[in-house]
This record gives sequence, C-alpha cells and structure tokens, in this order.
Amino acid sequence: MSAPTPAGSCKTVLAGGIAKKLLSEVSSGLQTLGRRPRLYGFLANQDPAARMYADWTARTCTENGFDFVLREVDREDLEDELRHANTDDDVDGIIVYYPVFGSRRDQTLQWTVSMYKDVEGLSPQLISNMYQNIRFLDPPNNTRKSILPCTPLAVIKILEHLNIYNTFLDYGKRLFGRRITVINRSEVVGRPLAALLANDGAEVYSVDITGVQKFSRGSGLKKQKHEVQDLEGWGLEQCLPISDVVISGVPGESYKVPTNLIREGAACINFSSEKNFNPDVKEKASIYVPAIGKVTIVVLMRNLLRIVQNKPTTDGLEP
Amino acid sequence: MSAPTPAGSCKTVLAGGIAKKLLSEVSSGLQTLGRRPRLYGFLANQDPAARMYADWTARTCTENGFDFVLREVDREDLEDELRHANTDDDVDGIIVYYPVFGSRRDQTLQWTVSMYKDVEGLSPQLISNMYQNIRFLDPPNNTRKSILPCTPLAVIKILEHLNIYNTFLDYGKRLFGRRITVINRSEVVGRPLAALLANDGAEVYSVDITGVQKFSRGSGLKKQKHEVQDLEGWGLEQCLPISDVVISGVPGESYKVPTNLIREGAACINFSSEKNFNPDVKEKASIYVPAIGKVTIVVLMRNLLRIVQNKPTTDGLEP
Repeated sequence: MSAPTPAGSCKTVLAGGIAKKLLSEVSSGLQTLGRRPRLYGFLANQDPAARMYADWTARTCTENGFDFVLREVDREDLEDELRHANTDDDVDGIIVYYPVFGSRRDQTLQWTVSMYKDVEGLSPQLISNMYQNIRFLDPPNNTRKSILPCTPLAVIKILEHLNIYNTFLDYGKRLFGRRITVINRSEVVGRPLAALLANDGAEVYSVDITGVQKFSRGSGLKKQKHEVQDLEGWGLEQCLPISDVVISGVPGESYKVPTNLIREGAACINFSSEKNFNPDVKEKASIYVPAIGKVTIVVLMRNLLRIVQNKPTTDGLEP
Repeated sequence: MSAPTPAGSCKTVLAGGIAKKLLSEVSSGLQTLGRRPRLYGFLANQDPAARMYADWTARTCTENGFDFVLREVDREDLEDELRHANTDDDVDGIIVYYPVFGSRRDQTLQWTVSMYKDVEGLSPQLISNMYQNIRFLDPPNNTRKSILPCTPLAVIKILEHLNIYNTFLDYGKRLFGRRITVINRSEVVGRPLAALLANDGAEVYSVDITGVQKFSRGSGLKKQKHEVQDLEGWGLEQCLPISDVVISGVPGESYKVPTNLIREGAACINFSSEKNFNPDVKEKASIYVPAIGKVTIVVLMRNLLRIVQNKPTTDGLEP
C-alpha cells in the first residue's frame, strides 16, 4: 500500500474522551473505597457562572458515585461555615465558588479551607509543596500525595494521555527534553502549570503581557526544583518555533496564537474558555485539544477521592 | 518526599534488554508458525570479522528456534549458489557475508538474492519500496510487509522502545514533530534510516562530510513520502541544538559528537562500532544508547520470520 493518507495529519482530541478514561480510574478507586465521598459546595454569590459551575459539579458528582451538598450561605457567614465544615467528619471535601467578595478577602477564604479537605488544591501548604516539587504530605513514608490545583493538573493528565509525558523516563523526569510554551501566567493556572511542567523536567516558556520567563531545572535536571529566569527581549517569536507543546489560556475573545510561529508537529492545547487557536492550527500541529473543561471536573473528583484515600487513621497527621 | 534525586537524569539503555523484548515477539510468532525457518549464510571470503558475524548469526539462530546452515563457497561460485538457493524450497532466507569481492561486483551479488528470501532487506525492489514509503508487497491487500534493512530497522525498533515513536499518533505519522539528526549518510544505513524516519513524519537532518540534507514530508506531512533538500551552510552547529534525537554512526575511532551542541534532554543513539559520543553526553541527554548490535541481530531473525509469514500459498506472488 501507499503510506497512510497525508490529509488531516493533525489529531483533534476532545476532552470528553480523556475525561472518560480518567473517570474509569476514579470509579475503580471508588469501588475499593466502598463508600460515597461527600463534597460540600459553598455558593455565596449571585454570579450565574458560579451557579452553573455548581450545578455542573453536582450533576457530575452524583452521576459518578459522589455525594454533593450545595450550601448556599450569606457571604458574611462563609468563613465560619468553612471552619465548621473543616471539622465536620461528614464532610470529605470542600469547594468554594468564587468570586465571593471579589477582593483580597477571597484569598483569606481560600486559606480558611483545611488543606485536608481542599479539592481545589489552593491551600497555602499545597501550593507551597507544588512550587517546591514536594509531592507527598507525609515524608518519608510518601503514601499520601499532595493535592494539586485542578486546572493545571487537568493539563498534565491531558499531556499524559497524549504520551507527551514519556513513561520510559523515570517518574518526575518524564518531560525531560520537552520545550513547552504556556501563554498565561495567572496565579491560579498559568504560573502553577509552568512550575509543575518544569518540575517534571520540561523547559517552560511562560508568556504573559509583561514578557517571557523560563522555568526549568537546569542542565541535566541537576536542580531539585525549577528555577525562574527572565528572558529579556523574548516574545512568542522566540518561544513558539522551538516549542513541542503550546498551551494557551488567554481569556480575551480576540486573542489568537499566531499559527505561523507554531512549530511543525507541535501539540496545541487551549484551556481558555475562548478559542485561543485559529482553525488553521490543524495544518501545522500534530495534536490539537480545543478545550479541557471536562477533564478539569473529573480531576476535581479525583482530588476528592485522593483526599479520602489520604485520610489518616491513627497517626495524627491531621491538625 | 522531595522530588526524585536529580543525579543521573540520563538513562543509559543497553541493546540487550531491547533485544530480549523483541526476541519474545519473534518467539511467539515462531510458535504460531510451528516450524523452524531455515537461513542460509553464504561465506565466500577469509575476513575474520565476516566469520565472526556468521558464527554470531549461527548461535543466535539455533538458540532461538531457527535453523542456520553455513555455506562456505568459492566467491566465483557464489552467484550460481545464490540462484540455486533462490529456488530451493528448503531455504527460507539468505544472508551473504560481505565484502566478497570488495568491489561493485558485490552489489551484483546483492541484487542476485531473491527479494522473497532477502533477510537483509537490500534487494532493489525492497529498497525502492522503502524510499517511496510503500510498506506492503501486495497492495491493495496489504497483508505482506515489505522487508526493511536490518540496521535502520533496528534503530527504529529502539526508538519505538524509547517511546520516541508516539503511539497516540496514527501509524506512519508517529514521529511528527520530532527533529532528528543522523550523522552518517551511507547507502547501507544512514540514508535509508533518514528516509524511514522522515517517512514516519520526522524532520531529519542527515549529516555527512559533504554537508547537511533535510529529509521531511513537508508542512503538515502533506507529502506522501519524504523529500530531500540541501541545507546550505548548515553543520552540526545548526542541527544538534534543535534535535530531540541524535543518531550517530561514524566509523572513525577519533570521531566524537560535540556534547556542547547537543540539546538538553535529547535521546542519543550510537550505531557505530566505535564510541561516537563522549562520556559527558550523560550530563545532557535524557537517554543514551551506546550500541545497537544485539537489536540488529534480532531484527535479522524478525525479517526471516516475516519472510516465512509472507510466503504466498496459491496466488502466485512469487516470480
């Protein structure tokens, strides 16, 4: 025969399929557990997007063997409510639908959630572990994995699914040799994602409106955790042509990653709610993932499962 | 815990392990077959290296369920002997230990071997299929794979083992997005290897003393087979820093690939009998394969097995 047809060399990969695979892993973990973990969702605003997300979590949870309890509370009461949930043995996991105050006070709320119930992985200790490449809560036993923030972890699960993580390499180094551009350096997604990818061995170009930073563990991955370096004078013109993977999460509707700068055969992943890639990306990319939301929601359930699996029995790990 | 220890990020991969895995595939194919394929090895010179190779083939064959018959003949009789073996139903595969005359006449001998018995994959029709990216002998049925030359195929099997072929991508495109430098452009190994890698989607920089050529299937792999382009003014300085994989097969003892030009996290494979990489390659590479000989010999047996599996029953595929 001739070679496979050259038309359509780019594979468009929908999040649904990846989510399904992850979900089956979560399901089998749940069966071993033998009970329904319970997630409390706190809604303290009138934001329709927040309510939609809450409804979505509720449906996905109940359809997949988790209990979801929606707690609608006045925002002034939320801090107390969270403290109560932190110590309530009937509550396994907690999620808060932000924004609540839409100010710095939201961060205080975020920090109020117990790190042992934080399915979103936003507690200071969890965030600190992540940046420092500390992967377990209980060194040196290393039986309880630290919880990672949902959206960055969803991107990682997608990269694993696409074999961009090379399982031939050792755990913690499976992106060694990869160059990855991440467009977005927010505290919630872009910066933690760049750190996670660099901690796994990649050389990451983190791009935002202020410029480009390189996240990497240095020559031969000799460093234990990533370090950050400003790349003066760099822009997408420098990053994209040398990147195997391009991950974009720019919120603006008009923002588009310039296709002409993308390297032949790159994998392109969009985590924005807007379409950051032009349709012609398929003429250059080997893989295109247009959206990741469905994976993120499964990762949230996976985090909840992990939290329950992490529960100490008698050794007093919890505060 | 902390991240995995950063020391020794490079994995040194020995051919023996890869050979063993391939061998088990060959063994199970052999069991299905239910008989011992027979390989004729023709030795018509006094070259001690050729005899050693013959002894090595003999041992590996007999240890693994193949019959090996060493035919020592006068070189003037070899052409007739080959014609006889071509039509002898007791002979499944043929290998000739070169050099015989050490001149162009050796190529005539090579072309005398029937393509249906050529375990080395050097027959003109097989070579032509390979360069044209035609993968089967019996289009459009596509049940009988064309035989590929042993050493290039051994390199491909190694790249598959290392997950450098991405099985998430479609067959025939699994190297899309990879940039590979091949140092050596011999007719026996370097050039066919560059062609095979490019036909599978890679952008290949083929380097020899005369300069650099790019083998690729063009933007979006729109071309059915690879095309070759001279890269004027290019040298290793241009190729190595952008290559994910570096494959070297320079016969000279003094030749070394300059480590400083190799990209962080590259996979480095040596197919020369000399050591083409300096020991410090391990400080930059993610994977280092110092030699491939053991894989090549298994590939030879794999080719023999395939030849037997390819045998036509009644449809007159053979001449």
